[in-house]
Amino acid sequence: MSTKDTDFAIEGHGDISVGVQGAGASGDGSASATRITPGNALRPEDIALEISRGQVKPSEDVAEFALRIGDDGLILAQRLGHWISRAPELEEDIALGNIALDQLGHARSFLTYAGAAWGKSEDDLAYFRREHEFRSAHLFEQPNGDFAVTIARQFIVSFYQFELYTKLMESTDATLAAISAKAVKEVDYHRDHSAQWVLRLAGGTDESRARIIQGFKLVWPYVDELFEDDELTTRLAEAGVAVQPSSLRAEFDRLTGEIMAEAELEIPGVPQSLGGGRKGKHSEFLGYILAEMQVLAREHPGASW
Amino acid sequence: MSTKDTDFAIEGHGDISVGVQGAGASGDGSASATRITPGNALRPEDIALEISRGQVKPSEDVAEFALRIGDDGLILAQRLGHWISRAPELEEDIALGNIALDQLGHARSFLTYAGAAWGKSEDDLAYFRREHEFRSAHLFEQPNGDFAVTIARQFIVSFYQFELYTKLMESTDATLAAISAKAVKEVDYHRDHSAQWVLRLAGGTDESRARIIQGFKLVWPYVDELFEDDELTTRLAEAGVAVQPSSLRAEFDRLTGEIMAEAELEIPGVPQSLGGGRKGKHSEFLGYILAEMQVLAREHPGASW
Repeated sequence: MSTKDTDFAIEGHGDISVGVQGAGASGDGSASATRITPGNALRPEDIALEISRGQVKPSEDVAEFALRIGDDGLILAQRLGHWISRAPELEEDIALGNIALDQLGHARSFLTYAGAAWGKSEDDLAYFRREHEFRSAHLFEQPNGDFAVTIARQFIVSFYQFELYTKLMESTDATLAAISAKAVKEVDYHRDHSAQWVLRLAGGTDESRARIIQGFKLVWPYVDELFEDDELTTRLAEAGVAVQPSSLRAEFDRLTGEIMAEAELEIPGVPQSLGGGRKGKHSEFLGYILAEMQVLAREHPGASW
Repeated sequence: MSTKDTDFAIEGHGDISVGVQGAGASGDGSASATRITPGNALRPEDIALEISRGQVKPSEDVAEFALRIGDDGLILAQRLGHWISRAPELEEDIALGNIALDQLGHARSFLTYAGAAWGKSEDDLAYFRREHEFRSAHLFEQPNGDFAVTIARQFIVSFYQFELYTKLMESTDATLAAISAKAVKEVDYHRDHSAQWVLRLAGGTDESRARIIQGFKLVWPYVDELFEDDELTTRLAEAGVAVQPSSLRAEFDRLTGEIMAEAELEIPGVPQSLGGGRKGKHSEFLGYILAEMQVLAREHPGASW
C-alpha cells in the first residue's frame, strides 16, 4: 500500500463503512487466497451434493432466474480477471482479482442450482451454451475500458447486487436465500471498494475526475435494464421467491446518489440502451467473451481430458 | 465441483497431503476472497510501514535477491490471471485465480522490501522498470499454452518455491525470513494442487496424458536456470541470508520425482535453455507481458489519477 492509500483510508466517507475494517473481524490468521474453508453456508459443492441427493430442485422459473444472476457474475468475472497485474497499483490488482473470484464463486452457486432443473452442471451451463442462451444484463459484458470505467461499472453492479441479494435473503426458496446470504457479505465489500474509488477519482486530479465522469457516461446507459420487470419476475414476486427488480431502484438511487453527491458527480444525462440481455439479446461484446471462455472446454467436449 | 473431483479428492496420493484438507483447519467461516485479515505476519503494507519508520532496510545484495524472487511471482501472476473464466472447469478458474493472487501477494512483499534499498515503491518497480531490469527466471514468463502446460509450469514453480521459501525462513535477514514463512504455507497448497493435476492428467485419458507429457516437454528446458548459483547467491550464502540455489536441487528432484514416478511420467530428455533472466536477459515473451502490465501506470507517470 502506498502512502496515499493510507491517507485515503483514514478519511471518513459518510455512511458507507470501510470494508477492510469489517473484514478484519474474521480473525483468520492468513490472507492466503487459496484457503478453502469448510464452514461456508453454501458452496457450489454443497449445492451439487444436495441436488445429487434429491434434496433440492428449483422450479423452472427459479432456475431461469438463477441463470440470470449466475450469468451476470460469470461474465463480470471474466472481465475483471483481465485486471490481474494490469491495474494502476499492484494492491489494486489483488482487489479486482478478489472481486472477480467472488463474482465467479457466486456464479458457480447460482448456475449449479439452476442446472438442477435441467440435469446440467455449472460447467455445462458455462461452457456449452450459445450466446443467445446467456441471460446476463448488458452492463456485465461492457468492456473494462480504463480503470475508471471498470470502477464505474463495478460501482453500479455492486450497489445493484447488494439490494438484490439483501431481498433474496428473504426468498421462499431456501437455496436462493442461502446463496444470497453468503454473497451479500462479499458484495458489501465490493460496494465499499468501488465507492471509495469513485470518491478518490472524483476528488483527485483533474485527469482522474475527467476519467470517472467519462466512465459513468459509458456505463450509465446500462442501468435501467437491471431494474426491468418482466413476466418471470412478476410470477416470482407473486410466489415470494424474488421481488420485482423495479422495487430495488429507489434504494439503489438513494445510496448511489449519496456517494455521487459526495463526489460532486452528476448522474449522466445519457439515453438508456435497449437492453434485452435477460432474453438472450446481447451486444457484440459477449461473443468474444464466450469464445475465450469456452474454447478449452469445447475442444474436448465431455472430457476433463 | 463436479463429481469426478469428489472421486479424485478421496484418492490417496502417497506422501503429499491434499491442500484442501489442510486449509480446512483454518476454521474461517467465510471463503470470501476479499477478506483482508489483519493477523498476517508480514503484508506489503507492514513492510512499507517498517521501511518508512527506518526499521528495515535491505543491503544492496539482499535487495537484488528480493527483486529476483519478487519478479518471479509478479510475472507468473500476470500469466495465471489470464485463466480466470478460461480454465476447463469453473472450479479450476478459481483455483488458478487464487494462485495468481497468492503469487502477486508474495511479489508485492518482496518488491516492497527490495525497493527500500533504492527509495522505490513496489509500484515503481513493477511499472517503471524496463525489460532488462527485470530479474525473473525464464520459466515464469513462458506462455500458458493449454491447461496441461500451465499445470506443468506450476508444478515446477511450486516445488522450487517451496524449497526456496523453506530455506529462507532461516535467513539471517528477518524480513526475508518473515515473508518466506508466510509464503511457504500458500506455496504448499500450490504444490499439492499442481501435483494432484499432474497425477490426474497423467492417469486420465490418452489425450490428457499426451498433453501433460507435452506440457513437461515445453517447460522442462527452464528448470536448470532456477538452480544456478552466481556471485550474488554465493555472497548471500556466505552471509547466511540465503542458500545457494544449487543446494535446493536434490530435494526438488526427489519430491518431483516421486510424483512423476507415481504418474508414470519421465523427466523429458530436452536440452536446457541458456537462461539469463537473473541478469536481465529475457525471452521474447517478457516484452509483451510488460507492455500489458505497464501501459496504464505509464500513461500517467507519478499520478494515481
